Amino acid sequence: MGITIDNIMLFRQLFDEESSTYTYLIADRTFKQALLVDPVLEQVERDRQLLHELGLTLKYCLETHIHADHITGMGKLRQMTGCLGIVPENAQIACADDFLKQGEMLRLGNVIIEAIATPGHTNSHCAYLVNQKAILTGDALFIRGCGRTDFQSGDAGTLYDSVTQQLFTLPDETLVYPGHDYRGHTVSTIGEEKQYNPRFVGRDRLQFIIFMNNLNLAYPKKMMEAVPANEKCGNI
Amino acid sequence: MGITIDNIMLFRQLFDEESSTYTYLIADRTFKQALLVDPVLEQVERDRQLLHELGLTLKYCLETHIHADHITGMGKLRQMTGCLGIVPENAQIACADDFLKQGEMLRLGNVIIEAIATPGHTNSHCAYLVNQKAILTGDALFIRGCGRTDFQSGDAGTLYDSVTQQLFTLPDETLVYPGHDYRGHTVSTIGEEKQYNPRFVGRDRLQFIIFMNNLNLAYPKKMMEAVPANEKCGNI
Repeated sequence: MGITIDNIMLFRQLFDEESSTYTYLIADRTFKQALLVDPVLEQVERDRQLLHELGLTLKYCLETHIHADHITGMGKLRQMTGCLGIVPENAQIACADDFLKQGEMLRLGNVIIEAIATPGHTNSHCAYLVNQKAILTGDALFIRGCGRTDFQSGDAGTLYDSVTQQLFTLPDETLVYPGHDYRGHTVSTIGEEKQYNPRFVGRDRLQFIIFMNNLNLAYPKKMMEAVPANEKCGNI
Repeated sequence: MGITIDNIMLFRQLFDEESSTYTYLIADRTFKQALLVDPVLEQVERDRQLLHELGLTLKYCLETHIHADHITGMGKLRQMTGCLGIVPENAQIACADDFLKQGEMLRLGNVIIEAIATPGHTNSHCAYLVNQKAILTGDALFIRGCGRTDFQSGDAGTLYDSVTQQLFTLPDETLVYPGHDYRGHTVSTIGEEKQYNPRFVGRDRLQFIIFMNNLNLAYPKKMMEAVPANEKCGNI
């Protein structure tokens, strides 16, 4: 039992309350190497302390996309630990140390992270499949929801294709760990989301596009600050 | 991997942002029977919907203690589902359907929940050991913290004994799932808490009592409403 007590992998889900962002700490227990997915600037000290207490060396900070609602902790963590900052290939931000494209893998000892290109929320979004058992879905797929598609080159039809053709084709038992949650859920499965995600159930591609294009959401409070900062890897 | 995808047990951690409370949904996958530990009144509809989507029958609502910071969802869930409401023996609230004392077990198919009396935060607090692999520590032990001891018959010395003699004697790899978290942590282990919990590391019993008795915390905002409501099983 326990993604957390898997003999090979250590897995910790961490939450930033201000932006409702989930950060994921993943490590190989034997080699003591770790990566953080979607770290939040204001939580860097918490994350650094946890890495220290668990005896882990941070090798990578990995982003699912260029965020609009919070500033990444990547820049600060890179300064503090010497880790590499990695972003999806299409993000094309000059400050990143490396880029991942569809199907490319990142290895931490016996833990394998596979990039699955899932554009739509932004045009450079990747989800990450962890040892073929859990998928970090970023802002492509939330628990009973999905990311918005109305800025940062977002496109509702593209998101529909990413979710239905890339994520919903994973095995039903694959664990879904999203980039945000606003209702207190922590985890779901692909099977559950295929069956119960109200954004997708009973909507074809065109109906989804019409629905998403009429959400009329306010822009994220930090957007004007966060996007340019994240295009500089959080080096504000 | 995954407490969540254990073949026997389904395990979901749920969060109430207003009170920073964790509720736990635990079920036997074969028998489709579930229990909720520390449900929150305002989240009853979320929890009911999740039970429905997962095809689960709610058998029990179980409290770690009489809460002072939120009203339990037990009463409402009992009305909606016919589940039984269970509290620690020493809580002695007349509306409960049953009581658990030290060492008593509750069984859901092949999932076994064992009550571990851990008074100190309140005089009737129980932690719950789940299939000998995870401990739901309620407000006795938090991740790098612990519950306060300054009201509801709380007692710092008693809490020190509960944590050091009941919880810290569990195997190091036991997963710690707390009743609250205020910094975005979701899970820890007994080994980590023994080594890094700043409330206990480097403090003997007397030093812990002096520390706890000088915290001078404000009372919980909802205390005057929550405690009497919870003494009626949340039937407000």
